[in-house]
Amino acid sequence: MSNVSVIEAAELLIKADNILIITHRRPDGDTTGCAGALCRALCQIGKNAYILENPDITKRYKPLIEPYKAPENFEPNFVVTTDIADINLFTPNAEKYIGKIDLVLDHHKSNSNFGKYNLVRANAGACGEVILDVIEHMGASLTTDIAECIYIALSTDTGCFKFSNTTPDTLRGAAKCLEAGVDGGEINRALFEVKTWARFQMERIIFDTMQFENDKKVAIAKLYRKDIDKTGADMDDLDSIASLTRQIEGVEVGITLTENKDLTVKASVRTTKEVDASAICAKCGGGGHIRAAGATFDKNIDIETAYKMIVNATMEVYRETNG
Amino acid sequence: MSNVSVIEAAELLIKADNILIITHRRPDGDTTGCAGALCRALCQIGKNAYILENPDITKRYKPLIEPYKAPENFEPNFVVTTDIADINLFTPNAEKYIGKIDLVLDHHKSNSNFGKYNLVRANAGACGEVILDVIEHMGASLTTDIAECIYIALSTDTGCFKFSNTTPDTLRGAAKCLEAGVDGGEINRALFEVKTWARFQMERIIFDTMQFENDKKVAIAKLYRKDIDKTGADMDDLDSIASLTRQIEGVEVGITLTENKDLTVKASVRTTKEVDASAICAKCGGGGHIRAAGATFDKNIDIETAYKMIVNATMEVYRETNG
Repeated sequence: MSNVSVIEAAELLIKADNILIITHRRPDGDTTGCAGALCRALCQIGKNAYILENPDITKRYKPLIEPYKAPENFEPNFVVTTDIADINLFTPNAEKYIGKIDLVLDHHKSNSNFGKYNLVRANAGACGEVILDVIEHMGASLTTDIAECIYIALSTDTGCFKFSNTTPDTLRGAAKCLEAGVDGGEINRALFEVKTWARFQMERIIFDTMQFENDKKVAIAKLYRKDIDKTGADMDDLDSIASLTRQIEGVEVGITLTENKDLTVKASVRTTKEVDASAICAKCGGGGHIRAAGATFDKNIDIETAYKMIVNATMEVYRETNG
Repeated sequence: MSNVSVIEAAELLIKADNILIITHRRPDGDTTGCAGALCRALCQIGKNAYILENPDITKRYKPLIEPYKAPENFEPNFVVTTDIADINLFTPNAEKYIGKIDLVLDHHKSNSNFGKYNLVRANAGACGEVILDVIEHMGASLTTDIAECIYIALSTDTGCFKFSNTTPDTLRGAAKCLEAGVDGGEINRALFEVKTWARFQMERIIFDTMQFENDKKVAIAKLYRKDIDKTGADMDDLDSIASLTRQIEGVEVGITLTENKDLTVKASVRTTKEVDASAICAKCGGGGHIRAAGATFDKNIDIETAYKMIVNATMEVYRETNG
């Protein structure tokens, strides 16, 4: 349970072998980009390293981790997690490694330090910043392949360097990736500009169902499972859709309520600097960052009830902030 | 007409005094950000420096240059241009300085080197990269105020670091600006995210009325005058709205039909590399660039007829391209 520096983390990896890397549930560009970059770098310096299969993996991020998928009979001697804040974010097939994590590499302030060694840089915009540092200290060279993974980690977690969590290190890391041969323009076009048909339909639904509260400072969109299924939207299509509600002039809190496959309701909250998103989500059993947080409601709570609960939580935070 | 290095450009400015800075027609974030940053830096090192009033200035970029507006009777001893590729981009009130430009600071490959001294870095994503370098070599310190101007120059010219013109220097420059205290998240939110209510309503209409032709390769949205008037949308709100239709996966031709105030119908056509937008518009009496073109129909042609005409024109271009 001890915290380690970048140098110590790199040394642990250099000493280790038969390494397994684990990504989080609902994998995004940061967790998969980090795993992909670290695994490639470890192989480059002669290690036997794999990434645990992620059952939630989507088409978009599959190429980052798929080529390094751990064989079924792989018995690791050293287990690393990338961008995982807590063990409750493990996929079912990763649960057997709970209590056996050697190294946690992350950037979530809320990280529960569940590893034997933990490198958590809470001020990093993306875990990709941490991984880039570790890779450099491992003495691996930043090939185009590795740099693409890092670039995707950095850009997806910061809204293509647009959000306030972007740090000087995010930008300098991305600069190194461009120098390593990454085609940022093409990657960003695919990640941030082109809308799939399913995405287009989902945006149409968001625009049509958006409701407003608190003098139009709070915008809430509801995504019903039946609509998601009808459009065929997967997690890629829903990625960052939560921030759409916050784009409207005067909106300080943008909330997206999504019916999960098991019909539990997930709230994604995005705020401007006036309001703490994690404070809102904490009141509903969730958490996250100050401008971007989330919560999943209990099984018996439907989307209409969740609506009332999250609006109440938001109003409470407003009162606490101004009180 | 000689080219100079960054060091030489900085030395010219250090030696000069009573300096006037000129921005280009239809001023953007780069020309105004550069002028704003350079003028503030010159004042910081004790120079008498101003920015020539720009008659086209919009509300968004006014704060960058307005506080340093040249007095009417100002007689400069040294005239600098920022982000101006050619003298045909001078505003009318700047034309009297044609032939009297001492220093051109720019990043356009097409720059006609119209200054006595010219520093043109064609591989820079934004002129802001050049200005940042010049300011540092002048020995001025990067205050938050100056860094904000530079950051706006860098981010607006690269689509918030998304486009392929973004360089490692763009990103490293932006990193320095964040370190100087710039709130990148807030600036980007205002520049790239916030939608006015009128804009939001117009996007909703586009999403709701969009129709598809030719196996969904052609997307057409209709903006009726009554809807535009109802939302109160002005030209700023409609800016770049035409490109929305082209963002959908598989769409090669995005067309927006807008009823003008005089009820004539205007077509805005945006294409991907597969189709020539200007060829489509030429068939309807219009023209433009290969990826972005337009046409205005005759007075007696309503929006439904215009729809048929522009679809026919598009199909003709498809046949000609493949024929």
